[in-house]
Amino acid sequence: MYKYEELQDIVNRAINNMSYEYEAEKLFAPVKYLMSMGGKRIRPVLTLMACNLFDDKIEKAILPAVGLEVFHNYTLVHDDIMDRSELRRGSATVHVKWNVNQAILSGDVMAFIANECMLNAPPSILQEVMKIYNDTAIDVCSGQQMDMDFEQKSFVSHTDYLRMIELKTAVLLAAALKIGAVIGNARPEEAEKLFSFGNNLGLAFQIQDDLLDTYGDPQVFGKKIGNDIVANKKTILIIKALELASGAQLNTLNHQLQIEDFNNEEKIDAVKNIFDELNIKAIVEDMARQYTDLAYSSLEDVQVEKDRKEELMELTYLLLKRTK
Amino acid sequence: MYKYEELQDIVNRAINNMSYEYEAEKLFAPVKYLMSMGGKRIRPVLTLMACNLFDDKIEKAILPAVGLEVFHNYTLVHDDIMDRSELRRGSATVHVKWNVNQAILSGDVMAFIANECMLNAPPSILQEVMKIYNDTAIDVCSGQQMDMDFEQKSFVSHTDYLRMIELKTAVLLAAALKIGAVIGNARPEEAEKLFSFGNNLGLAFQIQDDLLDTYGDPQVFGKKIGNDIVANKKTILIIKALELASGAQLNTLNHQLQIEDFNNEEKIDAVKNIFDELNIKAIVEDMARQYTDLAYSSLEDVQVEKDRKEELMELTYLLLKRTK
Repeated sequence: MYKYEELQDIVNRAINNMSYEYEAEKLFAPVKYLMSMGGKRIRPVLTLMACNLFDDKIEKAILPAVGLEVFHNYTLVHDDIMDRSELRRGSATVHVKWNVNQAILSGDVMAFIANECMLNAPPSILQEVMKIYNDTAIDVCSGQQMDMDFEQKSFVSHTDYLRMIELKTAVLLAAALKIGAVIGNARPEEAEKLFSFGNNLGLAFQIQDDLLDTYGDPQVFGKKIGNDIVANKKTILIIKALELASGAQLNTLNHQLQIEDFNNEEKIDAVKNIFDELNIKAIVEDMARQYTDLAYSSLEDVQVEKDRKEELMELTYLLLKRTK
Repeated sequence: MYKYEELQDIVNRAINNMSYEYEAEKLFAPVKYLMSMGGKRIRPVLTLMACNLFDDKIEKAILPAVGLEVFHNYTLVHDDIMDRSELRRGSATVHVKWNVNQAILSGDVMAFIANECMLNAPPSILQEVMKIYNDTAIDVCSGQQMDMDFEQKSFVSHTDYLRMIELKTAVLLAAALKIGAVIGNARPEEAEKLFSFGNNLGLAFQIQDDLLDTYGDPQVFGKKIGNDIVANKKTILIIKALELASGAQLNTLNHQLQIEDFNNEEKIDAVKNIFDELNIKAIVEDMARQYTDLAYSSLEDVQVEKDRKEELMELTYLLLKRTK
């Protein structure tokens, strides 16, 4: 069985070995810039781990795994334009370093580089792998659409929010695992369990991400606490609070969401006070725990020897117990 | 054998029957808007005609053919953002009717809808069809990059210009034909001849497009003549003129390209005068004729009964003799 770091190395080596068409050099410079920024390579590692559950040989899964990382980075380039984000992993985003047109076009070509990688899946299962990948890509676009729609809405239900993060984030982790399982010749029901594992892992991870921004330890979290509150970001915390608040609490929350001139610390304190009164931290931690339990239980259900699952268990633990 | 209008109907019916995921309705509204705008449906019709050369049954080629039309429209949405175009087929472009973010995201999802269509190619040739499609998609992005790069350059060679229009426009016509041939179980060398036919047809068509903007009959052309000259658009005419001009002619051309305050008619006349002195019309007509001849000769070479090629011959004639 391969270890996480070994799989990361395999993915990074495959990414470094990618050759690009050089006829329009400018088109590929942002692609190389982005792909060489690093990152945890979670998605391709999940693909390889899932394949490795069922098969000691993982070579045939490497290029499809890289395809998912290229796809993920493609969505980041375009999302960063839409969100006007200026930094990505501490470096300038593509549309800032180059310009919006370049970011649109270099993003576009990444969708086809991702396809090219996916097309290396074994021919006998190519249609199945491409179908999983492609349905997921459409889901991710739908998730981004919902996220954009939410910005225009004053009220978003927690059900809609969970569906949004499922589409925007969780299904890609789920698909990464399922594709790995399919390439590893897993039976359909095992591949499905891995999909379910990834989906719940993704949901738990995103909910925890929201929790950490408000309740993380700034020493460990590595950045200031309360950014989401200051930015009026629709997180599961504020969404749940707006669902539960009434009377004076609701007025205070709405007031804090509307004021334009404020002291950051005062705003964070005011909103956190309401969160405390409404028991939001415990409610949302409970949500995260439910999805975590579902994730572990799907993984436990997968019919392979227990010790083959150790690396996936370890990675899940790392992702969900992270405090940064 | 199917006629052009029959194939257009088949394509339009398949496009009207497309069902979209409705969970994020806003995502798909621009897709439907664009796909229902109509247009000549040249690319999918070429796919079906190429398939029909070798096989009386064309059903299995319909969805991949539609995929190429979706891909083509996807490039239009993003190109229109990059070129700041406000009108497309007489209607508002997606980024004008909605906004830039919506046009980026709805464009993105079209790339995956195109994939989904292509995945309906028969499994035994799926990898081959997807490879042709995907290589072409990367070429089209490279062509758009070259086009963008040209805007920043004061001098572009006619060789670079021809390569740009080949990548941006011609290869997609070529791929449409090749994919149809492959789905029709043509032998590889016949599929290759159809690729070459499409590529040369595309080049001839684009060169003629440039000619018509300056030398077309405004009554037949349906729009004002000389728009490209007024807009300083890098066409094969001005590129060839800048290559051939020297002394006073070159000074006049450069002056006309630089002045910011001008009377449209005077600018058109001044540039056309230089074109006349340099014999540009005849030179460029000769280029178009060379590619037309190459196209016809590739098509003639295709080893099927002559009367099976009639519809493709007719369509080629229509496309290249068009005066509007």
